Amino acid sequence: MSKLKGIKDYSENELRHKIKTIIEKHYRRYGFESVETSVLTPMDVLTSKYGGGAEILEEIYRLTDRGDRDLGLRFDLTVPLMKVLREKSESIRKPFKRYEIGKVFRDGPTKKGRLREFTQCDADIVGCDKLLAEVELINMVLDIFEEVGLSVKVKVNNRKILEGYLTSKGIEDEKIDEVILTIDKLEKLEFDTLVKELIDKGLSEQLAKDTLSELTDASYDDLKSIDNQIVQEGLSELSEVTDYIRALGREDYILFTPTLARGLNFYDGLVYEVFTTEGNVTSSIAAGGRYNKGVREVTSSDSSAVGISIGLDVVYELLKDETTTNRDGVLVIPLGKEYEIDALKIATTYRSKGYLAEVEKVDRSIGKSFKYADRTNKRYAIVIGEQEVKENKVTVKDLKTGEELVEPLPNKEQ
Amino acid sequence: MSKLKGIKDYSENELRHKIKTIIEKHYRRYGFESVETSVLTPMDVLTSKYGGGAEILEEIYRLTDRGDRDLGLRFDLTVPLMKVLREKSESIRKPFKRYEIGKVFRDGPTKKGRLREFTQCDADIVGCDKLLAEVELINMVLDIFEEVGLSVKVKVNNRKILEGYLTSKGIEDEKIDEVILTIDKLEKLEFDTLVKELIDKGLSEQLAKDTLSELTDASYDDLKSIDNQIVQEGLSELSEVTDYIRALGREDYILFTPTLARGLNFYDGLVYEVFTTEGNVTSSIAAGGRYNKGVREVTSSDSSAVGISIGLDVVYELLKDETTTNRDGVLVIPLGKEYEIDALKIATTYRSKGYLAEVEKVDRSIGKSFKYADRTNKRYAIVIGEQEVKENKVTVKDLKTGEELVEPLPNKEQ
Repeated sequence: MSKLKGIKDYSENELRHKIKTIIEKHYRRYGFESVETSVLTPMDVLTSKYGGGAEILEEIYRLTDRGDRDLGLRFDLTVPLMKVLREKSESIRKPFKRYEIGKVFRDGPTKKGRLREFTQCDADIVGCDKLLAEVELINMVLDIFEEVGLSVKVKVNNRKILEGYLTSKGIEDEKIDEVILTIDKLEKLEFDTLVKELIDKGLSEQLAKDTLSELTDASYDDLKSIDNQIVQEGLSELSEVTDYIRALGREDYILFTPTLARGLNFYDGLVYEVFTTEGNVTSSIAAGGRYNKGVREVTSSDSSAVGISIGLDVVYELLKDETTTNRDGVLVIPLGKEYEIDALKIATTYRSKGYLAEVEKVDRSIGKSFKYADRTNKRYAIVIGEQEVKENKVTVKDLKTGEELVEPLPNKEQ
Repeated sequence: MSKLKGIKDYSENELRHKIKTIIEKHYRRYGFESVETSVLTPMDVLTSKYGGGAEILEEIYRLTDRGDRDLGLRFDLTVPLMKVLREKSESIRKPFKRYEIGKVFRDGPTKKGRLREFTQCDADIVGCDKLLAEVELINMVLDIFEEVGLSVKVKVNNRKILEGYLTSKGIEDEKIDEVILTIDKLEKLEFDTLVKELIDKGLSEQLAKDTLSELTDASYDDLKSIDNQIVQEGLSELSEVTDYIRALGREDYILFTPTLARGLNFYDGLVYEVFTTEGNVTSSIAAGGRYNKGVREVTSSDSSAVGISIGLDVVYELLKDETTTNRDGVLVIPLGKEYEIDALKIATTYRSKGYLAEVEKVDRSIGKSFKYADRTNKRYAIVIGEQEVKENKVTVKDLKTGEELVEPLPNKEQ
């Protein structure tokens, strides 16, 4: 039967569950609430203005239903959030802090860490103008990767710095978004390729070269000396956020990167991308920014929005060769059919104490049962047979240390 | 913009998260491990024999990708599990206990509790012939609904009883699956409609009427008196499972229902469906059974399999008018921009203690901030301003009881 490239099943996969659980725990601890949006989306919603660049639109999986409606599969979790905001604009009270962990679909080229069906973990704050929102998201993502066990750097920039800088270079307003799209590729493509791209977009060769090289080398102080109000505003926001992160003792994680743009003109304030120094994945593992402009175009309100999105699959890819930690489970092994009920009762008692507990359900030697316990991450084994029932006690064997502990049979009175 | 019937978004939805968390907790506590399968599936996999009745095949959302491959969206979580079993048959060690909580898609008619995009929560045991597997799944589902807070009945039957009974009535082997499909509708359609359906399937009017009415009224003892080996085998399995459930003190939840069939001939042993007596939902909220035949046809092995599937959306529908329980969260309110850093530090301290903690990020009156704390399920509020910093302590206000507790400012040394 057919197989599909870029579309994976994850069997017996406790590591993915662990990563997802850590992300969700922190999202909730920071006060984000669960939102679940639909996968099937009307095409007119997906292709509307805020949908992203034309590149993404080409990657939409399209289909029609029985009623011949044009549908597509969601390609991110931001468009569905915009749909919820528009449809429920009156009932949603702000600030609206939501998270969603869900699958998205893109019919594009695949590579390591880039699949056609993948899982995003998004957190967004709608209705908060303050930079405290950005600080919260960056601080949260650092908490997450600390617990996940990946060392990270957060590259930060501000779209205002880019826009103001390009204006100060004399580039016309209507060309700025296009130029930024090219600048965003600085870490992926050759310098000369990008110079050509900028010339095609109407810049002189000199201006194209100057812009790219100046931005790459620009320090905070270089940009501070530019006489442009938008640049100054961007720098001031950036330093406020950095001050807060410093106060939290985490400034070492922050790296000002003037060429960072996050592609889409959907963003209009602070932007950030998280990278890890471990493994061989060069793409970002999380990214986000402020998109007041995006949310305003869609909801026709004067609202504001900031978000972050973590890529579950790329994080999983980085960690998958590590061993997962053991759990404290119990396997109860009945020595024959007549002890199955006792085994069931013992397992119930352990479960009610919060343990993972399972009854051995296959006839095999005790040695093989112990092996099954071991490979399914159980720490303890309890054997129950004639002697145990007669003496009214069981032996709990610790499979890690080899120790044995004799305990009275639970639920004797039943 | 377009809206779709039968396809929902769930915004600010903590109840769905709560139900899902309870289900997952019990699945894991019984030793099931996480498997994630893909949504996009090649059509030849979906339409293969084990895919279910023709009715389901008509409801598949179909699409093609850029490479013109015929794809469909998964319509349940069993077909994807079969795909994993086939592809990884050599590396999967049995018994293989997996759970998956995920979206499935059916382009069919909608009604209350029946959507086009919905979430199933499946647990399956592959490679266990013993009835202990069935006992474990039924016991687990009772644990789940006890914690969820829904009173339930589990209707049980055995396909062997149905098949043996129909054979004993002189119905030919090749008609039996078709007749069972009609019997399965006994609780949904009129008696006369079903008699006509059986006549169309080649039964005499008398036989059709007798079969339907006898089965509806049949007691365990009535069936016990039938001289047919398959019926006796089915009854014996049924009573073994009932004995175990009785030993666990839960026989009152079990209701022997000889007309229960679970449609598909995919099943060949014990079958069960869970119903609730609460609310106005008449369809089952969970269902499953043994499908040795199903798994053997697909994997060409002599393996066995038993499963259960809980419908998240129908459980949510039943509970959605209930209030969710409060959380013990903290809202930290800075009295002006200069206290934002202190507020961030206080929130960090509470989070590290395991609390949900958030910094107020909107300028508004303290009364409004308290209201925001309240509606986002936070129990405590901490106000921080000039006086608090000067006196080096904060007041923690319990918004539920009105009590106030003065605490030293955390992290003074920083």
